[in-house]
Amino acid sequence: MVLANTYHLYLRPGADLIARMGGLHRFMGWERAILTDSGGFQVFSLRDLREVDDEGVTFRSHLDGSQHRFTPELVMEVQERLGSDVAMVLDQCIEPFDYDRSAAAARRTHLWAERCLGARTRSDQALFGIVQGGIHEDLRIESARVLTSMGFDGYAIGGLSVGESKQDTHRILDCVVPILPADKPRYLMGVGTPDDLLEGVARGIDIFDSVLPTRLARNGALFTFGGRLNLRNAINKDDPGPIQDGCACYTCQSFSRAYLRHLLVSNEILGLSLNTIHNLHFLLELMRNIRLSVLAGEFPAFKRTFLRRYSGQHADASWAHRPEGRAKSLGGRAGG
Amino acid sequence: MVLANTYHLYLRPGADLIARMGGLHRFMGWERAILTDSGGFQVFSLRDLREVDDEGVTFRSHLDGSQHRFTPELVMEVQERLGSDVAMVLDQCIEPFDYDRSAAAARRTHLWAERCLGARTRSDQALFGIVQGGIHEDLRIESARVLTSMGFDGYAIGGLSVGESKQDTHRILDCVVPILPADKPRYLMGVGTPDDLLEGVARGIDIFDSVLPTRLARNGALFTFGGRLNLRNAINKDDPGPIQDGCACYTCQSFSRAYLRHLLVSNEILGLSLNTIHNLHFLLELMRNIRLSVLAGEFPAFKRTFLRRYSGQHADASWAHRPEGRAKSLGGRAGG
Repeated sequence: MVLANTYHLYLRPGADLIARMGGLHRFMGWERAILTDSGGFQVFSLRDLREVDDEGVTFRSHLDGSQHRFTPELVMEVQERLGSDVAMVLDQCIEPFDYDRSAAAARRTHLWAERCLGARTRSDQALFGIVQGGIHEDLRIESARVLTSMGFDGYAIGGLSVGESKQDTHRILDCVVPILPADKPRYLMGVGTPDDLLEGVARGIDIFDSVLPTRLARNGALFTFGGRLNLRNAINKDDPGPIQDGCACYTCQSFSRAYLRHLLVSNEILGLSLNTIHNLHFLLELMRNIRLSVLAGEFPAFKRTFLRRYSGQHADASWAHRPEGRAKSLGGRAGG
Repeated sequence: MVLANTYHLYLRPGADLIARMGGLHRFMGWERAILTDSGGFQVFSLRDLREVDDEGVTFRSHLDGSQHRFTPELVMEVQERLGSDVAMVLDQCIEPFDYDRSAAAARRTHLWAERCLGARTRSDQALFGIVQGGIHEDLRIESARVLTSMGFDGYAIGGLSVGESKQDTHRILDCVVPILPADKPRYLMGVGTPDDLLEGVARGIDIFDSVLPTRLARNGALFTFGGRLNLRNAINKDDPGPIQDGCACYTCQSFSRAYLRHLLVSNEILGLSLNTIHNLHFLLELMRNIRLSVLAGEFPAFKRTFLRRYSGQHADASWAHRPEGRAKSLGGRAGG
């Protein structure tokens, strides 16, 4: 599934244009599923450029300063024009620590969720509600109950992965997920690393999204079973092996670490694409294997084994700088 | 055939590394033919960073200022280590207008060509000589005769496409090509537009190279039968048609002008790749069709027809800005 960004597409090239071009699937040549966020997260990250009230949020474009207003009704109309398979309600995202502000934002998110449901006109587009409430268990529980009673096609947990501790994230998931219907998709927004995916699935999450895998790839940080590889490190300079032994992705099947490091160091755009292919392949394969292990009733063992190998390295942030560390863990690499 | 750059690869990542990685074909995952230039052109374009004598050329790296020296023997060794299919002799490239300097550069180029031949150790790598002599017919004729007498596997014409007029280019080709052996490849260096390819082939040229098609693509200037398309122009904003109707390239088969323009305007790196795919496909198809027309004895008619359509638009630099101009020539585009 591809996530497309309502805020960015609304500003440029505009939902009208995309609708005239046959919708987002046709416009970007992607036949499989597309989810559009509501734009709420982006608008609320424009700290000095927006003003919110119960009706909606007024903001200035980061591109040209022009003034715009998002209401629940407008973001539904925009997402219906884009023609995504899954639309998201407009929610109010804030920092998660202050109790009163979290309570107010959750209340407003519920009002807006109701209005999004009312504004729907397409029966071929799923609509997900978004649970808010910061790091406060009672607010989160109430938010999950209110949204569940409205009856969405799926439920997202928003406002996490925004600076709170992992313990807080896990604590909130532990109290929210059990309230959400077991037969609807549960989506943890903005989460992204291999270990976070495993921890999320362990708590009942089905869907994740994050810019991290592609952003890391462009910076030369690549996923391997032994932890995150920093391609820029000198140790990769003359390494004829792939990023990850046994990986079936086009990049690993075709190119060495030495070549990929050369592309990165030389600022060749080809390197950005090749690295991105690997990180996405790695995560998709991980999710595929997670599903298999769940079906086989072996997820806890799978998670334990993966994390021992991945985070054992990962926990030591300096591992990639120590030749002996890598030699020990990857000594058996063919051609390495 | 891919052209790889000896100067750049010598500096980074280095010929030793590439040799240890199994040679350039394996390093970059390209099984088909590779030609390496000698690095002469790049070194001589470092105006303030190099000093030349009969033995070779000393220069400073544009990357870190470190000092290096290219001799005919060294560039042969480097190219043999890279393992390209075609190596080029080290030549002295200068601006083509001054007669005495052109004569001296040609004389030195001949000395170096002889030494490159002597330094060869690989029998599986072709070596091409490079004709110099600026825009001066007698110097060019002498250079072609001297090099031909040395016996290379192919002959390049260097030092053109460096600021002289098209008439000068054509005049030099007309006097040089007839001297070169008909059974060896003839290579016009640094030439690149569709019309230049046709004019070159008309004068007996077999091989061309240029950064232009890929550089133009990254800037959104795309080849069409009706001339060069500036993707950035507003007229493309809501155009659901491909860059070129009937084009079989992945980009044209998958994406509209509207989408490609959106990627370009939004600085999405995907657009750089998609545009490059089209321009390279367009030129490769052009060369394929040129070969077919030569075999069929119909090249003059093919050239006339192509240029009437292509340069009729192209000659008017402002054509792409005039909607009526484009509407007239491309009015029949499906979905356009």
